Amino acid sequence: MVMVSNKAAQAKRGKMVNGFDPEKTDQLSARTREFVERRARLLGPAYRLFYSDPIEFSRGDGVFLYDADGNEYLDAYNNVVSVGHRNPHVNKAIRVQMDSLCTHTRYMQEGVLDFAEQLLATFEDEIGHVMFTCTGSEANDLALRMAKYYTGNEGIIVTSEAYHGNSELTAGFSPSMGENSRLGTWVRRVPTPDTYRVETDNLGEWLAAHVSEQIRDLQRRGQGIAAFIADSLFASDGIFAHDPGILEPALKVVRDAGGIFVADEVQCGFARTGTHMWGYQRHNVLPDIVSLGKPMGNGYPVAGIAVRPEVLADFGHDIRYFNTFGGNTVAMAAAKATLEVIQGDNLLENCDRVGKLLLNGLRDLAKKDERIGDVRGAGLYLGVELVKDRATREPDSARALALVNEMRNRRVLISATAHNANVLKIRPPLIFGREHVDRFLTELEGALKAVN
Amino acid sequence: MVMVSNKAAQAKRGKMVNGFDPEKTDQLSARTREFVERRARLLGPAYRLFYSDPIEFSRGDGVFLYDADGNEYLDAYNNVVSVGHRNPHVNKAIRVQMDSLCTHTRYMQEGVLDFAEQLLATFEDEIGHVMFTCTGSEANDLALRMAKYYTGNEGIIVTSEAYHGNSELTAGFSPSMGENSRLGTWVRRVPTPDTYRVETDNLGEWLAAHVSEQIRDLQRRGQGIAAFIADSLFASDGIFAHDPGILEPALKVVRDAGGIFVADEVQCGFARTGTHMWGYQRHNVLPDIVSLGKPMGNGYPVAGIAVRPEVLADFGHDIRYFNTFGGNTVAMAAAKATLEVIQGDNLLENCDRVGKLLLNGLRDLAKKDERIGDVRGAGLYLGVELVKDRATREPDSARALALVNEMRNRRVLISATAHNANVLKIRPPLIFGREHVDRFLTELEGALKAVN
Repeated sequence: MVMVSNKAAQAKRGKMVNGFDPEKTDQLSARTREFVERRARLLGPAYRLFYSDPIEFSRGDGVFLYDADGNEYLDAYNNVVSVGHRNPHVNKAIRVQMDSLCTHTRYMQEGVLDFAEQLLATFEDEIGHVMFTCTGSEANDLALRMAKYYTGNEGIIVTSEAYHGNSELTAGFSPSMGENSRLGTWVRRVPTPDTYRVETDNLGEWLAAHVSEQIRDLQRRGQGIAAFIADSLFASDGIFAHDPGILEPALKVVRDAGGIFVADEVQCGFARTGTHMWGYQRHNVLPDIVSLGKPMGNGYPVAGIAVRPEVLADFGHDIRYFNTFGGNTVAMAAAKATLEVIQGDNLLENCDRVGKLLLNGLRDLAKKDERIGDVRGAGLYLGVELVKDRATREPDSARALALVNEMRNRRVLISATAHNANVLKIRPPLIFGREHVDRFLTELEGALKAVN
Repeated sequence: MVMVSNKAAQAKRGKMVNGFDPEKTDQLSARTREFVERRARLLGPAYRLFYSDPIEFSRGDGVFLYDADGNEYLDAYNNVVSVGHRNPHVNKAIRVQMDSLCTHTRYMQEGVLDFAEQLLATFEDEIGHVMFTCTGSEANDLALRMAKYYTGNEGIIVTSEAYHGNSELTAGFSPSMGENSRLGTWVRRVPTPDTYRVETDNLGEWLAAHVSEQIRDLQRRGQGIAAFIADSLFASDGIFAHDPGILEPALKVVRDAGGIFVADEVQCGFARTGTHMWGYQRHNVLPDIVSLGKPMGNGYPVAGIAVRPEVLADFGHDIRYFNTFGGNTVAMAAAKATLEVIQGDNLLENCDRVGKLLLNGLRDLAKKDERIGDVRGAGLYLGVELVKDRATREPDSARALALVNEMRNRRVLISATAHNANVLKIRPPLIFGREHVDRFLTELEGALKAVN
């Protein structure tokens, strides 16, 4: 049994959308119950499983995952395997490199440079360098260390429900980690630019005004603004695909005050948003640093940043950066192969086309169902917002959660997001096809009927 | 060309032991010069290469690395590949798992639990849980976040030249990153417990007194002591293999003040020190958190912490922890296979036996050579300290660096460590054999003659 102290018992358990509640094991199979207990005994209480009835998978293939009994699940959630589970091109590249050389960046190796060149070609000319880490958290941590060194300021501005990582620094500006996770004294939040609720003629100016107010507060305390960091879909705020223009006024305010803009592309990058390789490009803005992660090696731990040389110059000269596994030969082979598949198989175009099919299908469902307040997103990152009443727009968290679990029982994987966890999070691999969209919509229609 | 701002040009370049100096390219081949320029253009100035004449490897095998011309280098430096370059057992495990399922810890998977059980069996019963990250930096970052949450204190105490990671938090208590890398206001340093220089009858009490003084200073400022963190060989301070007992008095002082002890086993763990699986076990102490990394997956990015359940309880309950790639199915397969090789091939015993051969051989060289002031270490982590004069013990950094480069020219890989970079750092894979020791000693003897 896991010991729980009094302090812990009194505190609210750290929230997680679609998290399994270890107090509710009555409905579980004996095998699942046993697994959950063994897991708590070995890994302790910090880990969370998905779903009220967690799933065990034994293999994956393309857009599908299979449990031990061979049941097929349609994966409409896992963005890490963006070119598909068990992608043969990526796995072969890893295998070949692993069987020849696995070493780090302090020896010369062409592989890291070849991939760096290929990756830089996807950015604007102003973004001249890339650096490699293992995780998106490390990428954001490095980006903000650099932002602070470059600007000489301390303050970081994020949106209300942002998530940017699990390190001390990045968790410190990730309010979506919940009330028990301490925010930095140098962090300020601006409200979610919620296209469904905020009443304004100009959401860009509205956001800039909020950012400006927080900058003044940071300056008042002598902290100044180092960076404004956001992902282009405001994913953990609820997935919002704004018209181009939302970011530009805020960035002007930030830069006028001496800060920089970090585009967190850990989730929205690598073609995910359908029309551009990088999410920020939908908004016609140029970041100072771009952070990359999750799908970069299709599951192999590789991440990094792309940066304007001016922002990196002093930090790189004065301090240095080394990451034992970051940029190692195998990580670079995995990332290179993944990018080759994205580009070679036109997955950006596929993502755009299939994403629009899915978005339209979801909108058709919404027309017939008052419980769906809003449908939105870009490419293959879509949100379906559940409300109790279309007039009041009151979030319906319970129904969203019920739908996520009902979809799981129908063997389709999704999750939920936003402050109230009332927005279905739909984020399949980029190789999703028309037939998968059809299956998804059929099951969601069924789930909506089942969940009353 | 890389732009260097005025500020950067004025500052001292971030120091790195055995780092290539990009200003000195005269002696390089055209190919190396071209590589160095291309690398600076693509990756920017934060990366550092080893050696005054950097090396390019094209493959590895066991304890050897090979350059493009097929020249064989004896690897006496890379501790990541502790069971050997291109280990077939580990590579097969990665390949098989990768071709079946690569996914994260929010679905049930037996693999992570099986490995957790196997790993926990190598620790004392009091250390009840393990958690997984991708890098040692992430492991130390998580360990210290947890220490702060558990103790309610802010202060962290390290040794004078400690290195514990590259994140904002961990770089903040890694003074070996050099003067330009900012230390936290909550960090205090104690002097290196230098067995070669400190004059005392009891180095344990000496260290405890220094720790105690720093704790009082932290308390005076209301910060208190969250943790004392150290690796058992004080590797970046200069590699010191103390008699058992060095840590116990300091730990008592720390715990009496409400702090905990974090054993950084990223470098010293997994049998590296020869007599025990974990370096701290040589000292008969019990840590509150143990951080793991580098050799854990023989090159696959995997790391983690082992922790006393009491220390994790509130943090895990109140906050949660998720690392997208940490503990994923492939990482666990790699780590499990690596541990199987260490245990199945008795590499702990090999490390002890071969390490002693090497240590004795180095001591024999020292007897004949006044320039070697001290030889020390444990298992296959050894240091050879170069001095200008045995009486004054004045460090000879230049000679150490010359030896590292001369060894490179003789195709043996080592580096240097300590504040003055005058200690040869010898840290071969754990599969090092008697024949490799002979070859190493022959080349070092030759290098000592060549470097005058």
